[in-house]
Amino acid sequence: MSRIVRGMGDDAAVVRARAICVTSVDAMVEGVHFRLGGDWASAAEVGRRALAGGLSDLAAMGAEAGEAYLALGLPPGFGEEEGLELLRGARTLAAQTGTTIAGGDVVSAPVLTVCVTVVGWADAAEELVGRDGALVGDLIGVTGRLGGARAALAVIEGRARAADRGALLERMRNPAPRLAEGRALAAAGAHALIDLSDGLATDAEHIGLASGVRLRVDLDALPLEDGVSEIAAELGLPAWELAATGGEDYELCVCVAPADRTRAQDAVNAVSDVGISWIGLAVDGPPGVSLLDQRGKELALRGFEHRW
Amino acid sequence: MSRIVRGMGDDAAVVRARAICVTSVDAMVEGVHFRLGGDWASAAEVGRRALAGGLSDLAAMGAEAGEAYLALGLPPGFGEEEGLELLRGARTLAAQTGTTIAGGDVVSAPVLTVCVTVVGWADAAEELVGRDGALVGDLIGVTGRLGGARAALAVIEGRARAADRGALLERMRNPAPRLAEGRALAAAGAHALIDLSDGLATDAEHIGLASGVRLRVDLDALPLEDGVSEIAAELGLPAWELAATGGEDYELCVCVAPADRTRAQDAVNAVSDVGISWIGLAVDGPPGVSLLDQRGKELALRGFEHRW
Repeated sequence: MSRIVRGMGDDAAVVRARAICVTSVDAMVEGVHFRLGGDWASAAEVGRRALAGGLSDLAAMGAEAGEAYLALGLPPGFGEEEGLELLRGARTLAAQTGTTIAGGDVVSAPVLTVCVTVVGWADAAEELVGRDGALVGDLIGVTGRLGGARAALAVIEGRARAADRGALLERMRNPAPRLAEGRALAAAGAHALIDLSDGLATDAEHIGLASGVRLRVDLDALPLEDGVSEIAAELGLPAWELAATGGEDYELCVCVAPADRTRAQDAVNAVSDVGISWIGLAVDGPPGVSLLDQRGKELALRGFEHRW
Repeated sequence: MSRIVRGMGDDAAVVRARAICVTSVDAMVEGVHFRLGGDWASAAEVGRRALAGGLSDLAAMGAEAGEAYLALGLPPGFGEEEGLELLRGARTLAAQTGTTIAGGDVVSAPVLTVCVTVVGWADAAEELVGRDGALVGDLIGVTGRLGGARAALAVIEGRARAADRGALLERMRNPAPRLAEGRALAAAGAHALIDLSDGLATDAEHIGLASGVRLRVDLDALPLEDGVSEIAAELGLPAWELAATGGEDYELCVCVAPADRTRAQDAVNAVSDVGISWIGLAVDGPPGVSLLDQRGKELALRGFEHRW
């Protein structure tokens, strides 16, 4: 029996529900969140990336992706062909993640505007993981490798060169939402989960504040995307700074009980090869985050508001 | 047990579902769909109106309103106070309709942009009514009275004067989604249902095309909003033209079997005093709509794309 009872073409989409509905809405605006053309992004990449950001929120709850709804604001001169290309980009990622694009809206707007609503599902509220469950003593983990999106931005802006420019830009333009990893971590007993859209420095702080614990992160332990060290050196910055403050890596940050370390690791490794790295500890203290360098000195860093 | 498990403040909202999930997404852009200030609309009215448009889509399915998600694009100079006023407008209508605003996003944008996602619920797909079920022989009904929004537009633009300017403008700025009437008509066996957002001429055509029948509408039978006749006379137009082509009245158009006429009427009258008028018949013929004047002459009219 198909999940979709009525898709596009009626007043609203009609979908067979599971017990728990998980919904996130994200808007992306040209000139604010992305730029079109050249090294920046094609229409297809904008569509794909907008959907990726929404699906990443579902991943960060441990939900299963269901439907997506796209509201497009198209500027003068943005042709039908480009609009279809944008949809095609979103559809490609939708197909890869088992998501159905079930509806949307198209209006005129002064600049390209993409508003994505994603709906995910679970069979019980207890299957999901919020930001607020971290406990003192929990290990902090991150999936994959960090800093790639911010390093790619420096390359596009001409401030640095990349040995493998193609791979780095691809990673930034086409981030992969960690849906399977999120569900695996939730099933493995994760206490708290968030996706890295604003940068670890900011997103780990969200967990700390919501959970009432202090997340102590060892910057030296951050897993670096290929090429990030070289680009950081060229920029005269420590590599961990790109990794801790660069937004839009769309990896997951998780807190698990020390006893569940191997279980969480095995769960992630069972679904993909992105891996998980352990980068710190939740401790008693003022709710928030502490970012420590190799000498244990606390650094004041904020997530870098990404503009691409 | 609260329907909302997690509201704002996490990666996504978490809601206890019923069997069938009904979702609609609408975007509204300043300068395209609305104007701010003066006689046009306040920030609160924009918020309320954006939500009303979404809820009207749920009404047109016969769904019960559940949650709403607001993505706001705020332009430079649109202050926090105005943003809160916009939200307050949406919240007022949400409270009146049993809708929970459960999440959203706020970004920068060149002009005020409001993207509303509404989610409604039903216990079975069979409780809902699409556009595609009208049968030859069905009676065509509309709730409430038509033409008010377009007449108000003429008044705001200074092309006509209204005897009761306040009431007319209020009707346009604060349309009421016909949620209870939609559910009542669905329960009374309606074959097809749509909301009048683009104007009867266009929306009735949607039913005709989707159902494979021809909707024959008697323009003389259209119920007119107070003041529409006078304003039409001042504009030198037949009153039915404002009623048939004016968008954004947000009334419902329904097709029912002739045997269900009284049942549908009683169902609507049981939930409100907006009433229902019978305006035509679904007939065999090329799928679409025929708009007939008092001499039975077919007129070519399109819905008026509303710009306020």
